[in-house]
Amino acid sequence: MGLKLALFFGSTLLVTWSSSAQTLPDSVFIRKIYDEALTSGQSYKNLDYLSNKIGGRLSGSPEAEKAVQWTKQLMESYHFDKVYLQEVLVPHWVRGAKEKASIQSGKTKTEVPICALGGSVGTGKQALTANILEVKTFDELKSLGREKVQGKIVFFNRPMDPRQVSTFVAYSGAGDQRRQGASEAAKLGAIGIVVRSLNLFQDDLPHTGSLRYDETVNKIPAAAISTNGADKLSQMLKADPNVKFSYEMHCETLPDVKSYNVIGELRGSETPNEIIAVGGHLDSWDLADGSHDDGTGCMQSIEVLRLFKTLNYRPKRTIRAVLFMNEENGARGGRKYAELAKSNHENHVAAIESDAGGFTPRGFGIEADLTKIKVIQKWKPLLAPYGLHDIGPGHSGTDIEPLGEVDKNAALIGFTPDSQRYFQYHHASNDTFDKVNKRELELGGASMAALVYLLDKYGLDVSK
Amino acid sequence: MGLKLALFFGSTLLVTWSSSAQTLPDSVFIRKIYDEALTSGQSYKNLDYLSNKIGGRLSGSPEAEKAVQWTKQLMESYHFDKVYLQEVLVPHWVRGAKEKASIQSGKTKTEVPICALGGSVGTGKQALTANILEVKTFDELKSLGREKVQGKIVFFNRPMDPRQVSTFVAYSGAGDQRRQGASEAAKLGAIGIVVRSLNLFQDDLPHTGSLRYDETVNKIPAAAISTNGADKLSQMLKADPNVKFSYEMHCETLPDVKSYNVIGELRGSETPNEIIAVGGHLDSWDLADGSHDDGTGCMQSIEVLRLFKTLNYRPKRTIRAVLFMNEENGARGGRKYAELAKSNHENHVAAIESDAGGFTPRGFGIEADLTKIKVIQKWKPLLAPYGLHDIGPGHSGTDIEPLGEVDKNAALIGFTPDSQRYFQYHHASNDTFDKVNKRELELGGASMAALVYLLDKYGLDVSK
Repeated sequence: MGLKLALFFGSTLLVTWSSSAQTLPDSVFIRKIYDEALTSGQSYKNLDYLSNKIGGRLSGSPEAEKAVQWTKQLMESYHFDKVYLQEVLVPHWVRGAKEKASIQSGKTKTEVPICALGGSVGTGKQALTANILEVKTFDELKSLGREKVQGKIVFFNRPMDPRQVSTFVAYSGAGDQRRQGASEAAKLGAIGIVVRSLNLFQDDLPHTGSLRYDETVNKIPAAAISTNGADKLSQMLKADPNVKFSYEMHCETLPDVKSYNVIGELRGSETPNEIIAVGGHLDSWDLADGSHDDGTGCMQSIEVLRLFKTLNYRPKRTIRAVLFMNEENGARGGRKYAELAKSNHENHVAAIESDAGGFTPRGFGIEADLTKIKVIQKWKPLLAPYGLHDIGPGHSGTDIEPLGEVDKNAALIGFTPDSQRYFQYHHASNDTFDKVNKRELELGGASMAALVYLLDKYGLDVSK
Repeated sequence: MGLKLALFFGSTLLVTWSSSAQTLPDSVFIRKIYDEALTSGQSYKNLDYLSNKIGGRLSGSPEAEKAVQWTKQLMESYHFDKVYLQEVLVPHWVRGAKEKASIQSGKTKTEVPICALGGSVGTGKQALTANILEVKTFDELKSLGREKVQGKIVFFNRPMDPRQVSTFVAYSGAGDQRRQGASEAAKLGAIGIVVRSLNLFQDDLPHTGSLRYDETVNKIPAAAISTNGADKLSQMLKADPNVKFSYEMHCETLPDVKSYNVIGELRGSETPNEIIAVGGHLDSWDLADGSHDDGTGCMQSIEVLRLFKTLNYRPKRTIRAVLFMNEENGARGGRKYAELAKSNHENHVAAIESDAGGFTPRGFGIEADLTKIKVIQKWKPLLAPYGLHDIGPGHSGTDIEPLGEVDKNAALIGFTPDSQRYFQYHHASNDTFDKVNKRELELGGASMAALVYLLDKYGLDVSK
């Protein structure tokens, strides 16, 4: 776009107003939230610290512990009404020395990039080497039967479906291979698995992520291979069915470690026992600094409370920023939060999770009664000017789902940013701070604050 | 996002259908457009060639000529019904040796990154050095008067407004400094200007762009300074009002050069003289390869026609991909296209321009009678599943606006992708291929094709 300027663009109304926050029209207060976030937002600066000074924060790691202490101090520095920790025991899986893998066809040996899936057992001191069997689905695996699977390394190579506009749908459609592939293959006698990385792009980066071993079958080593590596392996297998795959992984699971959810609160002025929680998860994978997954969600959640403080908005209900520990490989923080909410007889109006990256806001996915969803949808005219159009039933978040089981009245809400870039970085070594755009991050925090403001002001109880 | 999968995401319906393209329900054919674009799209590969094999394509340059020849061949290779060139004389401005600038305060000399604005005169062989005067607006400049401005270098330092959710509104609000700053300053006797780069981010990259000299005043050298450089200069001026600014630019304007618009057509089967044009501009600035501005728009426009060919869709009206030459510093290609449309008695139903980057689609801005806008808005249910919500009055495009002047019946439509990242790259040395996301680019081309399909099938004449 060049010389001639965009004179026709509709401008979002900019206003100044001198009344107190509580008496402003909703559209004016929401505009003030965005103005503050876009001119004086602190989430980007805070994410820079978390990503670049602390780094990857796998549960049980020293970095996770540092992140707990630093985010607690950060919220204290903002003078939230209450900042505290919730103790939770978390799994402690470690990757060990960098993984290696190669494809052997005759005398040629081709190295390919892999990484261990989170929770996987290692291969022992030696590399694991065996013939390889490519499948796309569990049904295909089962149809091959024990005779063909026994003693082999199973290669799960079903790509994410690029036709899905929401990349999360594509993720959902391919994730069984990573989660349950090891146990499904072990049931038929396989000695290891390699899974195509859950990535919609062709590149050389393996993407880790959790697996779940069935307790009834052998635990076999499970690796992710980059999308380019998967294509290479598949081609070589077609040319030579006797190709051997060889990989070496030194990961292991150590005893559980004490860790924490980190919580900050602005106490409600009218009904403090009614809570609106907004959160992300503080742990990350170890391959990168975990900026989009989920440094952004944590920094946005803290920013929501900071915005209210700065704008002198005194909430009627208690607003809580919750940084959950251990979403990636156990979800223990989310369960602990729900358990304590129940034993403390807390009443959550809603819980919002930001765990889909720090990209431009598109809307909110809601798990709640249709009547509550309709209340939120009535706020669309206030939110659409900020690009929030996709507001309706949808996925909320791994950390807040356990809360839904103990507090049936709580609306569970997932912040939905644009999803196109997420799975290029997700769980891979390129999920780093430089992939986050400052304005996109700030718009996300402001969007979450706008919804929290409306939830606080009006609640979701249509009978009242 | 980790272990638990997104099972609640609404999936966009995926279908297979065996009927001919013409008899499919609209939603089914539009789904096929996206499927083809997302699974076998060629725009990303083509952009890679344009950006990395040809590179920056300033009007009059050898690269612009190469781009003309290559895009013509590309469209011929797709067997469009007709591929041809429209000759147009374009300005030939050249940057010359890399610009240099420094701020001098006492004995300290601080270098800062600048670049010449497109169309600027140079400083001559010597650097231009003078006292500097910072202003934010033309009103402020005028209030200072000739006495204070005479002999100085004027520093225009009004930032883009970060509060605007649409960054194009922010661009529009700051662009007068770049376009008219030189002449406004020269009227009061200034000997040069430096303009804060039109960039919402803080970095070290100067952003070029066109200026317009009034013919009645002196042409004085005009440079853009990076946002960090502008802040530095402003700070140093506050500390020492006698700061001197010194810069050296060797740019000049050479005689006009013959160049071309490049056009490909699918001929309409029913009313071939009714045209739907879809285009971008083939020229770019010289500091980078011009991927987002506007390689993406060109490759998407070609992709629209390729999608129809591949899907065996035979349009009723003539569908035309137009790659305009010289949008950046003269808009001569757009004017030539309009002139020929008029002399050939062509009838445009609509012209769509993609010149806002290859980011995730958000909608379309329309310049047309309200009745036509309403026809397009009625298609929202077909487009919203693909994230196209912002459909209404808005800016169309610099290249197609002249067409609107000669064909009052033509709806002028601007493709509107997400705007948050655009001005980080716009007209700067980082507008390169690696900043383009494959899926975002492909979704854009498919979105344009979906709209062209509806325009072709139904037209916009509500009286029929």
